[in-house]
Amino acid sequence: MRTAVGTGTQQDFLQKLVRHGHFLPSGEPGLYGRGEVFEDVLGRLDALITRAGASDMPERPRFPPLIPRRTLEKSGYLKSFPHLCGVVFSFDGNEADALDLVERAHRGDDWSTHLAMSDVVLVPAACYPAYPAIALRGPLSPGGVTLDLGGSYVFRHEPSGDPARLQMFHQRELVRIGSAQDVLDWRQTWMNRARTICQQIGLDATLEVASDPFFGRGGKLLSTSQREQCLKFELLVPIASPEATAVSSFNAHQEHFGSVFGIQLHDGHVASSACVGFGLERITLALFWAHGMEIRDWPEHVRNRLWSEVRVTTVHA
Amino acid sequence: MRTAVGTGTQQDFLQKLVRHGHFLPSGEPGLYGRGEVFEDVLGRLDALITRAGASDMPERPRFPPLIPRRTLEKSGYLKSFPHLCGVVFSFDGNEADALDLVERAHRGDDWSTHLAMSDVVLVPAACYPAYPAIALRGPLSPGGVTLDLGGSYVFRHEPSGDPARLQMFHQRELVRIGSAQDVLDWRQTWMNRARTICQQIGLDATLEVASDPFFGRGGKLLSTSQREQCLKFELLVPIASPEATAVSSFNAHQEHFGSVFGIQLHDGHVASSACVGFGLERITLALFWAHGMEIRDWPEHVRNRLWSEVRVTTVHA
Repeated sequence: MRTAVGTGTQQDFLQKLVRHGHFLPSGEPGLYGRGEVFEDVLGRLDALITRAGASDMPERPRFPPLIPRRTLEKSGYLKSFPHLCGVVFSFDGNEADALDLVERAHRGDDWSTHLAMSDVVLVPAACYPAYPAIALRGPLSPGGVTLDLGGSYVFRHEPSGDPARLQMFHQRELVRIGSAQDVLDWRQTWMNRARTICQQIGLDATLEVASDPFFGRGGKLLSTSQREQCLKFELLVPIASPEATAVSSFNAHQEHFGSVFGIQLHDGHVASSACVGFGLERITLALFWAHGMEIRDWPEHVRNRLWSEVRVTTVHA
Repeated sequence: MRTAVGTGTQQDFLQKLVRHGHFLPSGEPGLYGRGEVFEDVLGRLDALITRAGASDMPERPRFPPLIPRRTLEKSGYLKSFPHLCGVVFSFDGNEADALDLVERAHRGDDWSTHLAMSDVVLVPAACYPAYPAIALRGPLSPGGVTLDLGGSYVFRHEPSGDPARLQMFHQRELVRIGSAQDVLDWRQTWMNRARTICQQIGLDATLEVASDPFFGRGGKLLSTSQREQCLKFELLVPIASPEATAVSSFNAHQEHFGSVFGIQLHDGHVASSACVGFGLERITLALFWAHGMEIRDWPEHVRNRLWSEVRVTTVHA
């Protein structure tokens, strides 16, 4: 097990979150239940993002937080981020094995020998299940496709004492698949929308060129290349850390996923893609960090923006 | 890998679901994305259950689909259901290991040797994370506690060709922790509520004494004892199978979780608990099975019940 001690400021923030019922400790770093008020804020934020992207008229499929292991293997994720993946193992044995497993677990001994790799893995980024699903439909219509995937749980193996670094969190993900220019324009639109959202809810946000946390020495080269090509931008806001924390990312994949999963434009060329992800728990944490633990103390314009809109649901069918 | 072929009727139903965009195949049995209409129905159903239980004034915490491995080990789950659990393994190696991992994955070889058991496992039942969280708060108030956990993702390692048997699905879970009589009364109330809900949405439901799918030969004894004590009831409805499918369960745990996780009543005695779970995807599937693939063809009273209520959200704080 890795050490997972946050800075003093992070520990203080975490303790406050727990004391106010916003975070419910599980005993494991980076794994918390959330209280009702925290969830209310997170849900409002989710709705704000939905509204910001509604004019794109996206399709709204939903995916569970597992994908086939084969999808992960094909995607290239293991090459770049082997240290972050989570693979599901299951029991594969007879009654004697089961008995030994239970006894080992009871004694606190290793029972992993009774488990075998299954065919499913945890979703590492919310857009991964979408590409094979879109590829299955055949070539795209002219204009491509826009997806609003809602808030999906994603997994990162990085136990941490920083309350803003969770092992399992909601990535609020939007995806554009189409021509190279269309997806870059769409990404630019979302960078503007995201800055507006942060402004509306009183968060001091900075947009920066960024890179992914690639593994190992070779990862440094990948990072440099990614930055040089401006493939990734991040929106950063302060959350209990000396440096601002990324709460949203804007990623151009070029033809990577189109090529790996066989997604074609209407003219038969390989499709490009981009995705935009909002870390819902992180933005919610940023709100509690910026405005305080009690919502009644938050600036009025922030509360109005999150809660004032009356949502009316009418007959659907 | 297990065989996972559904019956002819199940295969037909699955194909229809896919053709109508309700299920998006991932390539893995029991793992599907869901289309927008399916999700809309599921969300309405979720809201119907929320309203049915609102008079209990439950607390509404939310938990991610992972729990500490230690929680699973303590819970007794491994003894009863080792075959269903999902344990998260992660990469634990250097750069040479990472390279070998990628090459093995690329060749389709086993790369599990590079992975090690982590400290987290998939949630096997939505109420599991709640008990340690409640225990942390100290003895219960008089009257105990009622929880509405929302729709939580849970994992079962049982790849199947039956579209109603998913590896990862939403368990809409409610929990009561208190005195032995209080939790049994509450469970009875929910059995009545659940029958009413099914009636309202046009599902032909039967309530039966049931047992869990305990592992192995010893499991038969546990099943018999569970049935004799009426610890588990299930609500069954038809979904593309010769026998009706359980879509909801009503479980009395006696003092099991109270004792394992140290939850005390206000008087210091060990607390009892009960939980009620609704399989949201299953009930949604039951609706498509009973009323057809197109919502416009559903009986008017069913559509009215699910969609007619205007939900108005007002200022919170």
